Amino acid sequence: MTPWSLARRSARMNPSLIREILKLAERPGVLSMAGGLPSADSFPVDAIAEACARVMAQAPRQALQYAASEGYGPLRDWVAQRLAAMGLRASAEQVLITSGSQQGLDLVGKVLIDAGAPVAVESPTYLGALQAFNPYEPIYAGLAGDDEGPLPGAIEALPHDAPGTRFAYLLPNFQNPTGRVLPEARRDALVHAAQAARVPLVEDNPYGDLWYDEEPPAPLAARWPEGTVYLGSFSKVLAPGLRLGYLLAPESLYPKLLQAKQAADLHTPGFNQRVVYEVVRDGFLDRHVATIRARYRRQRDAMAAALVAHLPALSHWRAPLGGMFFWVRLPEGCDALGLLPNALAAGIAYVPGLPFYAHAGDPRTLRLSFVTLSPQEIGDGVAVLGRVLREHLDAQGEVAP
Amino acid sequence: MTPWSLARRSARMNPSLIREILKLAERPGVLSMAGGLPSADSFPVDAIAEACARVMAQAPRQALQYAASEGYGPLRDWVAQRLAAMGLRASAEQVLITSGSQQGLDLVGKVLIDAGAPVAVESPTYLGALQAFNPYEPIYAGLAGDDEGPLPGAIEALPHDAPGTRFAYLLPNFQNPTGRVLPEARRDALVHAAQAARVPLVEDNPYGDLWYDEEPPAPLAARWPEGTVYLGSFSKVLAPGLRLGYLLAPESLYPKLLQAKQAADLHTPGFNQRVVYEVVRDGFLDRHVATIRARYRRQRDAMAAALVAHLPALSHWRAPLGGMFFWVRLPEGCDALGLLPNALAAGIAYVPGLPFYAHAGDPRTLRLSFVTLSPQEIGDGVAVLGRVLREHLDAQGEVAP
Repeated sequence: MTPWSLARRSARMNPSLIREILKLAERPGVLSMAGGLPSADSFPVDAIAEACARVMAQAPRQALQYAASEGYGPLRDWVAQRLAAMGLRASAEQVLITSGSQQGLDLVGKVLIDAGAPVAVESPTYLGALQAFNPYEPIYAGLAGDDEGPLPGAIEALPHDAPGTRFAYLLPNFQNPTGRVLPEARRDALVHAAQAARVPLVEDNPYGDLWYDEEPPAPLAARWPEGTVYLGSFSKVLAPGLRLGYLLAPESLYPKLLQAKQAADLHTPGFNQRVVYEVVRDGFLDRHVATIRARYRRQRDAMAAALVAHLPALSHWRAPLGGMFFWVRLPEGCDALGLLPNALAAGIAYVPGLPFYAHAGDPRTLRLSFVTLSPQEIGDGVAVLGRVLREHLDAQGEVAP
Repeated sequence: MTPWSLARRSARMNPSLIREILKLAERPGVLSMAGGLPSADSFPVDAIAEACARVMAQAPRQALQYAASEGYGPLRDWVAQRLAAMGLRASAEQVLITSGSQQGLDLVGKVLIDAGAPVAVESPTYLGALQAFNPYEPIYAGLAGDDEGPLPGAIEALPHDAPGTRFAYLLPNFQNPTGRVLPEARRDALVHAAQAARVPLVEDNPYGDLWYDEEPPAPLAARWPEGTVYLGSFSKVLAPGLRLGYLLAPESLYPKLLQAKQAADLHTPGFNQRVVYEVVRDGFLDRHVATIRARYRRQRDAMAAALVAHLPALSHWRAPLGGMFFWVRLPEGCDALGLLPNALAAGIAYVPGLPFYAHAGDPRTLRLSFVTLSPQEIGDGVAVLGRVLREHLDAQGEVAP
């Protein structure tokens, strides 16, 4: 008999379906459109290697010693300046460097969520945020939405439908998984609704720099600084393996988030913070992100063309204006999770949409990443997907005419 | 009016008194014995710089990409082998790489502590562990102890005194703050008591390699593998700024700890894990730790001699056999926190003992670090401490004869 008793919250921690799918998708020969990874070909290897050498030559003992929980001062300054240029009311004192923006989500949950308290999320939303919040045992209030994002009316209804909602978690730019971006007018309407409902916002923006057609509108946090925690990341614009993100918090919240950070891991590795600062300090990031945009735009265009060419009638999608994903709704009779074994057997992989919903989701949805395959491979992979779907629909038609 | 409502647990997160003291201790001209930092002169800068260059030359894209939540396979293998050599039943599958052992403490708290559940801790204990556990709202059961560590009777009494105790948190080797080590017989007696009481153990071992006289006995985890989570760290033997630790968990707990890790920060930076693996893979660590031991032993001896020479009568301490700290109990009439301003004014700093107690503590205690000052500076600093104490005692004698 085990001597261990688990905390109640551990019942809300569960193995990730996506992790299991990704393991299957890693088999040799599988064209995987399942991953949530950026393209490793986009990593600025030379710049990072040079920065490592510079940090180890110039300040090795400082970089390798314990450091402040708030983060490395010059990097906090840099982040604050970048956010200010986006229209945010950002001072370095309100910037907290985190171990990836995933940690930012954990800290927000730790400081704000009581067991049984409502948290409003989009339907669907980012799976990793649900995983970060779940251990704090919220009750999720799903926000109805359309192709322009959550509906302001859904926020307005929160005081009635989910009184005491701690915050609404929103991804305005090229959301994972749907890829959709909130237009200017929707942003304004949502912020006004949130202010009226007194529901503060947690704004997650890992993909904002990855726009392929036009720059997205200013963040929600620019419209309601004291009511918004803003989360950013270097994972999609430099490299995720350094685990470096940041948050910008209102003055009333910052001290508790900082104390939660200190309790969680003391501080984000100082070495990594200095390396990234060395890489970005001279304006490198804007030049580099332009190359990622050009690369991903070609891949986005290839997938858009391939979907038109190969997906069966009554499939639905909208080509995203940024980010890394297409979100596809299959024709009636197609269950994305149920069809995954067929897809894997045929040599491709995708992620079914269900895990992205806090509540019951749409089983006909799936997510396709376009950033890790070449345009040629994207064409091949989508052609296989189309064949798998048509074979299934044809077989269905035979049994149920 | 702020729109934010804080979670109840946030009332248990508070600014660290020690952080405030350390800020004061950083003033130029202060001989600080307050820090909990290893000596930056002990960092193997060349080996780490070479390892960085090697990783960036040989596997940059893998090192910079997202990676497994469990940790980098070869590093997990290396840790398992090292732990097995210490007598632990360690397979790589049970090793979880963490962002410093502070994160190990947070994960353990997240998975095991319900609000109001008892957690047994030594008196005093490591402050950072209290900070990690506090957000999960435990009730602390203080374990009575002596110079050989907690008393087995205190563990035996837990089912009566604190029924449902989730675990006992123990630091057998050169504990922070007291420096004491548990002898072989006490380890056996504590494990037997814990097994009888069905109270599992969380064993924290950041200092075990820093022994100056003889190697400490085998860990508690070697005596009760299925009832012990073991935490280790590279912070004190390589460098803390890389934020790299690990835990070894029984099979029944590992999956939940892994899910908690994934939710907290996805994974510890793969780059850092590969760099440390490159540094340690060929046996470097044993050679390097021997140099740290020689350095710290000289400093320990210098502080032992200085305390004998300079502290007033009726001060009490025992020279530690390892680690980084002396724990001093001042004579009656001396309040360590109250005297700190005098000490800072005289140009030295220490940490008062009170923050290390979960409950009311002994105000006459203080902690002195011997690892960041030279033997000469240690002699000077302790001489000043002795003078501050004697001036205070003399003044007391004058007002209250």
